[in-house]
Amino acid sequence: MSVLYITPGTCAQAAHILLRELDLPIGIEMVPLRTPDSPIHRINPLGRVPALVVDEDTLITENSAILPYLADLKPDSGLFAAVGSPERAQIQSWIGYLTFDVHAGCFRPFFRPDRYSADASVHPGIRAQAIEQLYLALAHVDRHLQGRQWLVAERYTIADLYLCMFVSWLPRLGNTERFADLHNLARLQAAFQARPATRQALDFEAAR
Amino acid sequence: MSVLYITPGTCAQAAHILLRELDLPIGIEMVPLRTPDSPIHRINPLGRVPALVVDEDTLITENSAILPYLADLKPDSGLFAAVGSPERAQIQSWIGYLTFDVHAGCFRPFFRPDRYSADASVHPGIRAQAIEQLYLALAHVDRHLQGRQWLVAERYTIADLYLCMFVSWLPRLGNTERFADLHNLARLQAAFQARPATRQALDFEAAR
Ligand SMILES: N[C@@H](CCC(=O)N[C@@H](CS)C(=O)NCC(=O)O)C(=O)O
Ligand SMILES: N[C@@H](CCC(=O)N[C@@H](CS)C(=O)NCC(=O)O)C(=O)O
Repeated sequence: MSVLYITPGTCAQAAHILLRELDLPIGIEMVPLRTPDSPIHRINPLGRVPALVVDEDTLITENSAILPYLADLKPDSGLFAAVGSPERAQIQSWIGYLTFDVHAGCFRPFFRPDRYSADASVHPGIRAQAIEQLYLALAHVDRHLQGRQWLVAERYTIADLYLCMFVSWLPRLGNTERFADLHNLARLQAAFQARPATRQALDFEAAR
Repeated sequence: MSVLYITPGTCAQAAHILLRELDLPIGIEMVPLRTPDSPIHRINPLGRVPALVVDEDTLITENSAILPYLADLKPDSGLFAAVGSPERAQIQSWIGYLTFDVHAGCFRPFFRPDRYSADASVHPGIRAQAIEQLYLALAHVDRHLQGRQWLVAERYTIADLYLCMFVSWLPRLGNTERFADLHNLARLQAAFQARPATRQALDFEAAR
């Protein structure tokens, strides 16, 4: 038996939504974060989600590894691409960009400015700069989507899913007007929200 | 013909070293960064390296995509792992961790504090915090390596290669004593430096 550990509203939602897309026989367990007695500390020494435990003994962390791993279990889903194809590398590349530039580069300094300076008085400046950098990082994606329906290939893939999860975090920044001209992202986001797997995952997380 | 675009001393070195490990018929071109007339701007709209152009028309960026893509061209090298294997996901997971926590989370704020605050007076505090966070991020890797020769499996893979490139950046922080107790990393680093492919790539970059 394999189990995916998640916490509602975190970046584990990407892996959770994918699990619903693929309809795989993998359990889902909710864990609290940042409390010393959470079971996540026994599972993942970093105490982070998502964490996938395969066959009771192999730990896989990081969305950039979990999403490809899960999608490869059902190649016919079309959510990833054939090994050796440049398309596959481009999907992995967008996932890398989102991990590096969007998640670590912008959302993390916004949500955890203490990781970037020990001086709390400078945190508002760090958060303001994170919003500016995020606008630039997402504008690059929006330009790429001009004239394209999806990020790679002509179908919805794990790169679109991962992107849309981050786009759905924008209201948390309290400055949605800043992102209002990114129309291609808004279009992708609407398609993502309408997918049954997305709705199932969000409903499940909201019920906890 | 495929071409890898690199700049000496940058994170493109990981892809460069891997190309030498695999001995693939892919050209290597050196480009300057952050100058408006660099050819990199025609190749990659982000103006960043590494950038791999496959068969003259497909752009692949991000080490986390380029390293797996190249290693898959020579599966017998043992530098990656079979599709669908948990080992493969664990290699991709370490690459994701290094991208997120080490590169974006620490080296980037150290080298580019302007991306984290528009106020230059707070940059020294951001750089000091980056060193503290980097120590924590690498100590996690060092603990994982306790009693293990390599990060995953019992052989050198693209995860070790990528890790060691970042370890080789530590002297640039001007505070090597801070990292002196990470003995497992030092051991891995020595093995990496001794590999012919590493030496070839470093010599080639140093000659430019
Ligand atoms: N790069 C990792 C990031 C994982 C991560 O930072 N997860 C957060 C939730 S979004 C977490 O578990 N934080 C708890 C903590 O850091 O203590 C991934 O994509 O899986
Ligand atoms: N996450 C990317 C990072 C690429 C990156 O930031 N490259 C740097 C060199 S280490 C660069 O080209 N910087 C030039 C710039 O940002 O203008 C990867 O791993 O490939």
